[in-house]
Amino acid sequence: MEQEIKVCIYGATGYTGAELIRLISQHPHIKLTSITSQSYKEKRLSEVFSHFKATKYGELYLTQEPEEDFDLAFLCLPHEGSLELVPKLLEKGKKVIDLSGAYRIRDANMYPEYYQFEHTYTNILQEAVYGLPEVFREDVKRAKLVANPGCYPTATLLALYPLLKRGTQLEWLVVDALSGISGAGRKTTQKFHYPEMESDAFAYSVNKHRHTPEIEDVIKRISGKSLSLRFTPQVIPMSRGMMVKVYAKCEQDQYTELYRETYKEEPFVSILEEPPHIKHVRGTNHCLIYCYYDTRVGMLQVISVIDNLGKGASSQALQNFNLMMGLDETLGLKHTALYP
Amino acid sequence: MEQEIKVCIYGATGYTGAELIRLISQHPHIKLTSITSQSYKEKRLSEVFSHFKATKYGELYLTQEPEEDFDLAFLCLPHEGSLELVPKLLEKGKKVIDLSGAYRIRDANMYPEYYQFEHTYTNILQEAVYGLPEVFREDVKRAKLVANPGCYPTATLLALYPLLKRGTQLEWLVVDALSGISGAGRKTTQKFHYPEMESDAFAYSVNKHRHTPEIEDVIKRISGKSLSLRFTPQVIPMSRGMMVKVYAKCEQDQYTELYRETYKEEPFVSILEEPPHIKHVRGTNHCLIYCYYDTRVGMLQVISVIDNLGKGASSQALQNFNLMMGLDETLGLKHTALYP
Amino acid sequence: MEQEIKVCIYGATGYTGAELIRLISQHPHIKLTSITSQSYKEKRLSEVFSHFKATKYGELYLTQEPEEDFDLAFLCLPHEGSLELVPKLLEKGKKVIDLSGAYRIRDANMYPEYYQFEHTYTNILQEAVYGLPEVFREDVKRAKLVANPGCYPTATLLALYPLLKRGTQLEWLVVDALSGISGAGRKTTQKFHYPEMESDAFAYSVNKHRHTPEIEDVIKRISGKSLSLRFTPQVIPMSRGMMVKVYAKCEQDQYTELYRETYKEEPFVSILEEPPHIKHVRGTNHCLIYCYYDTRVGMLQVISVIDNLGKGASSQALQNFNLMMGLDETLGLKHTALYP
Amino acid sequence: MEQEIKVCIYGATGYTGAELIRLISQHPHIKLTSITSQSYKEKRLSEVFSHFKATKYGELYLTQEPEEDFDLAFLCLPHEGSLELVPKLLEKGKKVIDLSGAYRIRDANMYPEYYQFEHTYTNILQEAVYGLPEVFREDVKRAKLVANPGCYPTATLLALYPLLKRGTQLEWLVVDALSGISGAGRKTTQKFHYPEMESDAFAYSVNKHRHTPEIEDVIKRISGKSLSLRFTPQVIPMSRGMMVKVYAKCEQDQYTELYRETYKEEPFVSILEEPPHIKHVRGTNHCLIYCYYDTRVGMLQVISVIDNLGKGASSQALQNFNLMMGLDETLGLKHTALYP
Repeated sequence: MEQEIKVCIYGATGYTGAELIRLISQHPHIKLTSITSQSYKEKRLSEVFSHFKATKYGELYLTQEPEEDFDLAFLCLPHEGSLELVPKLLEKGKKVIDLSGAYRIRDANMYPEYYQFEHTYTNILQEAVYGLPEVFREDVKRAKLVANPGCYPTATLLALYPLLKRGTQLEWLVVDALSGISGAGRKTTQKFHYPEMESDAFAYSVNKHRHTPEIEDVIKRISGKSLSLRFTPQVIPMSRGMMVKVYAKCEQDQYTELYRETYKEEPFVSILEEPPHIKHVRGTNHCLIYCYYDTRVGMLQVISVIDNLGKGASSQALQNFNLMMGLDETLGLKHTALYP
Repeated sequence: MEQEIKVCIYGATGYTGAELIRLISQHPHIKLTSITSQSYKEKRLSEVFSHFKATKYGELYLTQEPEEDFDLAFLCLPHEGSLELVPKLLEKGKKVIDLSGAYRIRDANMYPEYYQFEHTYTNILQEAVYGLPEVFREDVKRAKLVANPGCYPTATLLALYPLLKRGTQLEWLVVDALSGISGAGRKTTQKFHYPEMESDAFAYSVNKHRHTPEIEDVIKRISGKSLSLRFTPQVIPMSRGMMVKVYAKCEQDQYTELYRETYKEEPFVSILEEPPHIKHVRGTNHCLIYCYYDTRVGMLQVISVIDNLGKGASSQALQNFNLMMGLDETLGLKHTALYP
Repeated sequence: MEQEIKVCIYGATGYTGAELIRLISQHPHIKLTSITSQSYKEKRLSEVFSHFKATKYGELYLTQEPEEDFDLAFLCLPHEGSLELVPKLLEKGKKVIDLSGAYRIRDANMYPEYYQFEHTYTNILQEAVYGLPEVFREDVKRAKLVANPGCYPTATLLALYPLLKRGTQLEWLVVDALSGISGAGRKTTQKFHYPEMESDAFAYSVNKHRHTPEIEDVIKRISGKSLSLRFTPQVIPMSRGMMVKVYAKCEQDQYTELYRETYKEEPFVSILEEPPHIKHVRGTNHCLIYCYYDTRVGMLQVISVIDNLGKGASSQALQNFNLMMGLDETLGLKHTALYP
Repeated sequence: MEQEIKVCIYGATGYTGAELIRLISQHPHIKLTSITSQSYKEKRLSEVFSHFKATKYGELYLTQEPEEDFDLAFLCLPHEGSLELVPKLLEKGKKVIDLSGAYRIRDANMYPEYYQFEHTYTNILQEAVYGLPEVFREDVKRAKLVANPGCYPTATLLALYPLLKRGTQLEWLVVDALSGISGAGRKTTQKFHYPEMESDAFAYSVNKHRHTPEIEDVIKRISGKSLSLRFTPQVIPMSRGMMVKVYAKCEQDQYTELYRETYKEEPFVSILEEPPHIKHVRGTNHCLIYCYYDTRVGMLQVISVIDNLGKGASSQALQNFNLMMGLDETLGLKHTALYP
């Protein structure tokens, strides 16, 4: 191994942290030097997650603070934790990929309403690059701080980007989204207790979800226009996976061709000729998209699927890492989905 | 037992047939005299479905043709089978509840396109009552032939009825619907093989589904207006259950009150203050509805859940039966959901 | 309704309490007068469990203490709670069915080791009737206090009873048991968080489980002999259901006939000719049993399935209730399994 | 890439074939030159399995016969297909790893009874190496034909090997085994239709399963002694994964130490201090083992878990490949389980 980049993970014992470690273990140029945890400090990784037993980093100890000697930090912390830590790391000259929402929305005014805190680092907020490589690749390459997108925004924005880029006139947007339960994190709650969630599904945060302003903010950055969306997140009984359906009133066009053309060079986005299956991206960084123009009603429908912990979180973070470090963007990400 | 009504079930070995038998077993005034099956004739019910072992009708034999001595027939047959059988039964003076789609759509022209057959009994088609009691109760009471609604139409129309009745101006309609796998029937297929369907979800029949003209037809009957909808059926990994989300652009109004008022006398429809869970209606005839007007985007969203084999098929058929026979509408249908 | 028996449920907001209410709602001779809860007192039942919305007892309030006016109390409390409450209720002349383990084991010495408390009511312990009707029916009929069996003991003892009754010489016993997650109760824990339990299965309490001394105690009561068993409880990814496999070294015999003969009058036990499916008893009070003598190795294998919340808890409690009250034993329990 | 070994897969469109392709795509020294299929010939792999879209071999065409130019063939064929093909391939000087059961059992007399065919290549049968590296590593290295073990035998034999090697006196053996549904293959059947298998579990082939003589045959090869086992395979509702519990009457000993010592150099076997979770080996080549001596009853219990498509089939085949080719045994197999 010629090149070895040292990284640490803050908050390694949630699902996105664990998924990052899984991926990093297979990456040829990364050395994971530290993993932090408040709840599990002093324990070995394999004591918290037994499936890491006998793997590369299974014996690594969780610590309260990381070793100083790292090039880049992945932050898998609560939003408030990232908010405060990012400025300190940047000051020390570290690169940062933040998987929280603390630096995703340019408009700082959104934070009190949607995140219940005042955003006090507005300069840094303006410099943060939104880590959706298909849209902001060149910015990511030069970034010191990448705000890694949320899972719903990733699937939604990849479904919208060709339209926004082309300037398609959209009268309104309905975004109806299904998520696996891991999207809600590792903390237990009554409704996600196995006996209750088996064979259940329901919508939640119908009137206010943090990903709504995130999506609208990026739509505006891309298209220059404000567009409000009706966003309905739902959980369905599966561990991981996400499907987003976008509905928009617009003129007829060659949408499939537009999507093909837009994403033809993209290693992780494929346009299908039939609706995609969530399971076909399980454990990967892929996004599969299908679009259909319904001439009866004059509406475009776009369906996209991702793994909420993959392209919706940790593997996208690794894609951003590759770009920031000047590496082949697909390194460590060429998995096939675990199937069946 | 004062009153005992004799019924038979044609096509008793699919999921809707089996669910009907389960419900009929608990009904105080029904005697099931015959159950038919082409594939399993000469077998006892408990040989086909072991869970009927040691139950009331477990030892009943499946036959090719029913005993003549019955008052009403439930038809759980393929559409083409019902098409031909219904006229014969009516001629014999039998009452019929048909769970297929053969007599649901008034406009016979839809059948060649959506059902691949020419509808040759258009007179009977006009007389068939669409068995959605909340909308057509009085017609059901007098009906000789009830066309029992499809599962998607039931959940969708109950979500729309208050708007249609009031005459709310709807610019367009998006209907995004999730179904358990039993909705696709008992016949095995690759994509519903357990290892493939576990942790999967996908949209299907996006461009053409038989329930689209059914819903549009009933909308027109209720409101007098044509309204086309964008309908997207999807399967999610659960055996039974259904959630429909309706999106419509319309003026602000007191929608929750409207829904409460419309359904205040209905024994099987409840208006909730938060999005309903599919699991909360498992095995029942209930429909739970939630509505939310999003002032940011000027859209109304209505979410309804039913059990696709319950209110979406067999228990609704029993509700229609009770009405047709002048019985208490809720007889045999007052179950609590099996939970968890 | 000629007869109306007033009952209350202590600890109504766990899974066994909720299942009891579901069943009681359909029982023709019970009036549920009170439901208690420490955590949810002052709430209506439908606020805790939305699926009770629009059902018979949905609007009943949970209270800290029940109304005094009841004939029998179902106790769905923690073991320690039942331990103290039972003597008080008996003193007041109430009949009691206790679903906890506090009065199941005759040998009080087991309690410190297996339940972490000293059993201080040993007189009552001796009088408590073990509520397995197939074995102790006459005792149950006369009982003032029924200790309702655990789920594993129910499935295991029904699998063993014909052997014990006949006096079959058993060299040793292996009991390997699979349970749905609801058996572990409603309290959330990390390992039963949906994303972790999906597609998982594991053994637990391999070296010490409370149901081991319970089973051994009843074996001794039936057969007069001590027999130690190797008991291995496991969870598999399903909400409810239980399968027990018993392995024993013994002489060849006509076991299937023995089992048929033993249970021929039992309304809730069926002997099958092939291994039973857990799903076939879902939501019911049934127990399905299969036995197979392997001549190659000289071992008998017996497989039994129940619903852990049904025959393994709440519906068995109702069966005991019917017996204690002199009612038809099957009242309110003649459901068919919810299938598929 | 210095070294590139050409392989083909016969019968690539079952689950074991697809899993092999997934793994081979990540292996640094393999070039997959052909994949065959009778049912899907002339199609591209991604047309049969959409999840291969945009992956390394997604555009590879399935053919009836492979290109001649390969070094080793993986056979994922029905038993009868392998039986006839193996001699032909060996004659051409190809190396073969056969994932069927056609060459696993030394005693040819077992085939008529357990496989319904006469074994006509008994010479080859004697030369076939049973591909369980932890037991027969040196033989595998020199093998021309490896009979890749069945999933149940792999989990069972790894649980037994330390005892057999040490010569522990075992009076009898009970093997109780749980499998995910993919173990039954890709062909659809009624009982594995999603709505029926959800929340179900059952035992099957209780009186005769092909893996019984396979396990007994290898036990005899290792220990020199005949030992009959009571083997009970069961399916539980999960796509992939396997847990085997072995029960044996034997003397007390330091079993955990024995297991640790036996497997201390093994890269894919770990001895745990608590019962293992099936999910912790999902998608990997790992086997996790736990053993517990119950002094109350004088029995040893050993629990092992594997992924039935991983260590139980395709990844074990790749481990054997690495050994046969003189490569690092762990190449392409150092994955962490997909979790949660």
